[in-house]
Amino acid sequence: MNSQLSRRSMLAAGAAGLAAGNLVEFACGQPTPAAEGVQHPTVITPNGTSLPWTTEDGCKTFHLVAEPVKREFAPGMVVDCWGYNGQTPGPTIEAVEGDRVRIYVTNKLPEPTTVHWHGIILPNGMDGVGGLTQPHIQPGETYRYEFDLKQHGTHMYHPHSDEMIQMALGMQGFFIIHPKSNDEQPVDRQFCIFLQEWFVPPGASRPNPMVMTDFNLFTFNSRVWPGTEPLVVRRGQRLRLSFANLSMDSHPMHFHGHRGWLTGTDGDRLPRSAWWPVATVNVPPGTTRDVEFVADNLGDWPLHCHKNHHAMNPMAHDFPNMIGVDQAGVEEKVRAVLPGYMAMGGNGMGMTGHMHHELPKNTLPMMTGEGPFGPIEMGGMFTVLKVREGIETFNDPGWYKHPEGTVAQKV
Amino acid sequence: MNSQLSRRSMLAAGAAGLAAGNLVEFACGQPTPAAEGVQHPTVITPNGTSLPWTTEDGCKTFHLVAEPVKREFAPGMVVDCWGYNGQTPGPTIEAVEGDRVRIYVTNKLPEPTTVHWHGIILPNGMDGVGGLTQPHIQPGETYRYEFDLKQHGTHMYHPHSDEMIQMALGMQGFFIIHPKSNDEQPVDRQFCIFLQEWFVPPGASRPNPMVMTDFNLFTFNSRVWPGTEPLVVRRGQRLRLSFANLSMDSHPMHFHGHRGWLTGTDGDRLPRSAWWPVATVNVPPGTTRDVEFVADNLGDWPLHCHKNHHAMNPMAHDFPNMIGVDQAGVEEKVRAVLPGYMAMGGNGMGMTGHMHHELPKNTLPMMTGEGPFGPIEMGGMFTVLKVREGIETFNDPGWYKHPEGTVAQKV
Amino acid sequence: MNSQLSRRSMLAAGAAGLAAGNLVEFACGQPTPAAEGVQHPTVITPNGTSLPWTTEDGCKTFHLVAEPVKREFAPGMVVDCWGYNGQTPGPTIEAVEGDRVRIYVTNKLPEPTTVHWHGIILPNGMDGVGGLTQPHIQPGETYRYEFDLKQHGTHMYHPHSDEMIQMALGMQGFFIIHPKSNDEQPVDRQFCIFLQEWFVPPGASRPNPMVMTDFNLFTFNSRVWPGTEPLVVRRGQRLRLSFANLSMDSHPMHFHGHRGWLTGTDGDRLPRSAWWPVATVNVPPGTTRDVEFVADNLGDWPLHCHKNHHAMNPMAHDFPNMIGVDQAGVEEKVRAVLPGYMAMGGNGMGMTGHMHHELPKNTLPMMTGEGPFGPIEMGGMFTVLKVREGIETFNDPGWYKHPEGTVAQKV
Repeated sequence: MNSQLSRRSMLAAGAAGLAAGNLVEFACGQPTPAAEGVQHPTVITPNGTSLPWTTEDGCKTFHLVAEPVKREFAPGMVVDCWGYNGQTPGPTIEAVEGDRVRIYVTNKLPEPTTVHWHGIILPNGMDGVGGLTQPHIQPGETYRYEFDLKQHGTHMYHPHSDEMIQMALGMQGFFIIHPKSNDEQPVDRQFCIFLQEWFVPPGASRPNPMVMTDFNLFTFNSRVWPGTEPLVVRRGQRLRLSFANLSMDSHPMHFHGHRGWLTGTDGDRLPRSAWWPVATVNVPPGTTRDVEFVADNLGDWPLHCHKNHHAMNPMAHDFPNMIGVDQAGVEEKVRAVLPGYMAMGGNGMGMTGHMHHELPKNTLPMMTGEGPFGPIEMGGMFTVLKVREGIETFNDPGWYKHPEGTVAQKV
Repeated sequence: MNSQLSRRSMLAAGAAGLAAGNLVEFACGQPTPAAEGVQHPTVITPNGTSLPWTTEDGCKTFHLVAEPVKREFAPGMVVDCWGYNGQTPGPTIEAVEGDRVRIYVTNKLPEPTTVHWHGIILPNGMDGVGGLTQPHIQPGETYRYEFDLKQHGTHMYHPHSDEMIQMALGMQGFFIIHPKSNDEQPVDRQFCIFLQEWFVPPGASRPNPMVMTDFNLFTFNSRVWPGTEPLVVRRGQRLRLSFANLSMDSHPMHFHGHRGWLTGTDGDRLPRSAWWPVATVNVPPGTTRDVEFVADNLGDWPLHCHKNHHAMNPMAHDFPNMIGVDQAGVEEKVRAVLPGYMAMGGNGMGMTGHMHHELPKNTLPMMTGEGPFGPIEMGGMFTVLKVREGIETFNDPGWYKHPEGTVAQKV
Repeated sequence: MNSQLSRRSMLAAGAAGLAAGNLVEFACGQPTPAAEGVQHPTVITPNGTSLPWTTEDGCKTFHLVAEPVKREFAPGMVVDCWGYNGQTPGPTIEAVEGDRVRIYVTNKLPEPTTVHWHGIILPNGMDGVGGLTQPHIQPGETYRYEFDLKQHGTHMYHPHSDEMIQMALGMQGFFIIHPKSNDEQPVDRQFCIFLQEWFVPPGASRPNPMVMTDFNLFTFNSRVWPGTEPLVVRRGQRLRLSFANLSMDSHPMHFHGHRGWLTGTDGDRLPRSAWWPVATVNVPPGTTRDVEFVADNLGDWPLHCHKNHHAMNPMAHDFPNMIGVDQAGVEEKVRAVLPGYMAMGGNGMGMTGHMHHELPKNTLPMMTGEGPFGPIEMGGMFTVLKVREGIETFNDPGWYKHPEGTVAQKV
């Protein structure tokens, strides 16, 4: 649905707001082409898409439409966000070092905006800082940016106009620049994951962008577990996990079963001598981090934020502490003053995450997701890396079938 | 007391819950043996112990018992935690690269649990993720994990079942894997320090695991200064400080008097070319950090978190701001509405940390600890590295005796 | 004004409190001399100064006076801080590897203090830890510190006595040690920026140092945008941006238009092989970070914290969420209960930052600063790097004049 929306949105905006350029080619959804003998990874934006492009006056040409977006964070919860082309995060821009890119930005928001190309070296007037390097783009207007790509790496785009509000509502996207020559170790699959946090009051659908520290929803590409797509790879493929963060907190991303190498930041690729081995990569606000490894260990491996509240859903963070308390009869009494109150947690919270009774409207339970061995007591910033032998397609292969005798067992 | 508890707890659980294995050897408390010609550091877990092990079917065999634990954070304050083998953090597991380890986990908690071996490369079914890679371990059950150690470094173990709650209550421990061959610069002493934060309401003994940002106790191995053991070394010894963090915040660990090198993460040892020189190493959640240096500077050197509130005890964080206010007569008036109120802070807080009058029950004063030159106005995540000439034993040597003329002096 | 204050303050304290030394030379405000053939960068402390020094008994001799300081954060807001020599942060100390330094510290605060030389390797008794390595310096007393500088890099000084309070009120400064031989890539200009956060209640002038997480003012060298000095450089100059942080939060510093290299920490300079390329450098509490690059891209380039609330002023963080709400008539009604309430934000916040009507006394609007293309909707930790062709002086050159056709434009 989102990619349909995106396409329609883009074409409509194109018809309405753009001067006619010299449209040569419409390679919608195609990967960005590599020079002969050069291999680019397949770029996957889980629960999202890459941005289609055309060629215009020799430029690789993109069109971003800033607009309100309704986003389903997980089944049962829809949030009123702002984004680009019907999506939050906006679609991933892919290009190649040496390209000249032209990017149209149409503002369909109720207030001015701009787009800043974070980490990209370009002429000052293309930097997208409202008031400082260009006028703010008023509602209804379309602006044109154009610059040469002189570097490669994992970058971002986002507003630099009322930015505290606009980023908190979901306006951000990846800008991936592929190298013009091969890396020493070419990557097969690159997964692009934006790390986000929100405060959506229980029962509401509009995030509160004034909140500075006490968030209650933590998302990968504006989705929470179990609404997050799994990352599917064939055993032996080399992966790049690209993380981007424009939230208020660092997010330490932990992946199971493999040792990775930190190979890049929003300042481009690290020299090989400077790589760090990592099982958890900390991603500070305003940065990107690339981690690479060969997926050589079969199975279903969690990938999640290791701030424990960030791998939970909203009910976790504002709850009375009942551990060790006998709550018999409490529920009815409390409901007299606090409708919907659930007595729980007397023995810990593990068994309560799945109780869905009487949650506020448009609110997710704390922990959800059923696995092959029972409840997976997680939420928020959590997904599963699925490494499989010999697969040729990358649809969700279901749960891993463990070889006999390789699972921890009761004695 | 804790190590006694641990021993008894382990033996009891072993008798009650385990199928009889082939117990060959009981090397309780012994360091893990090194191959001929290979030197392993002495591993010290301040205010804690390493986990005894046996040999069973050729496996180095450990037994963890998940259970409620009463922990004295400092004299005057006992906290109702959850941990392993009577301890929080759980005892440190030590093994050697190439070992096959077998680990029994008995659940004596009132809710299910599992154990995840963080950063360790192993078969998917041994990864310890409840619901995803194994069933949750129900109360009263014992599970067996078994895997080969293919790497070395500073890793962790912790639950992956109701993990927000269980980790917040103290369930975590180190898993140190020694290399099978010597490092280029062998280390003499390795100190393992878990960085933790808690919210214990004033007067209470049970931490509230729902708290996400506003903690009031910050601990090294579930102890606060002045309850933290000093780190004692002989001048010229090479140290490794190993830090682990499963809390919600990064903790920047600052050590005085020496320049260290960041040599490892939970993704294993850094190549020499990638080491960073550090006086403060930031330890994000979900990670470990190793710092190494030769202790060549005699004296008593603070080692502490450099988030200033984290090197304080609870009274610091929720206190009215009285700097510059004349409070004569205020105390009695406020006590009418707020029993136990202390008028203080009119000239700063430095002189008030030691006033112990009428603190709530089971609550520590903000700053405590008397040094050789007066009050050391610290608390929380603070300890002292004591570097001494020519010592052979490592009991607390008392305060450093400064050579004449080497102390800052009044003019 | 501040540097005048500083000078007077120092001389007065010198006359009143010091034993007469052998004053040889008074090189006030001069850069620290380099050995023949060695080039040191010009050190700039924006909105601040370096500390004058004299020579006494062969020592490079400095004098710090700890005292209350009134600091203008930006026009319209004066804050009651504590600092050194009339400034917050205190003046930057500059010396050269191999120097023997002598530093007098006079305490004019209403409570005891000490000074710790963070990251510097020195004798234990000179470490400045009150109670542990020396007596606290009582009000009215002057202490003498003296030690050899055996390293070079970007270090700090700050109290280690009631440190939570004293640092939160602004007591901190840079301690720059230049190398005795040339770096492989000599730097032309080094900018020293302290990253700070404060909670000043609306309408008040005294920061509340008990606040642990919910700050409302975020400063560069105790100034907020648009009160922050621009960083002015000639195209082709090599820069070092030195950041220091003694606050409670990490601050990710993002600079536009250039790729930098992370070259140093408070543990000294990184080996070349370990440098990271960065567009944003995360600066954790208790650390310094050096970033270097050649300023080869002409223009006006933002330099700011990328935690979005930290590049805003106080009105941003405690404001009702009105996005999408029709507020006609609301303002008058709310003012009946909340005087001074402003109905705003129904279409985002971008247009409201400049409304200055009826703010509380001594309180800054959320976003301020007018640029060449309209309002620059920022505040707090924000300044502008101005790269100009062929300039010889470094006063503010005004806004950049863009070559024709190089600015994003409306289509």
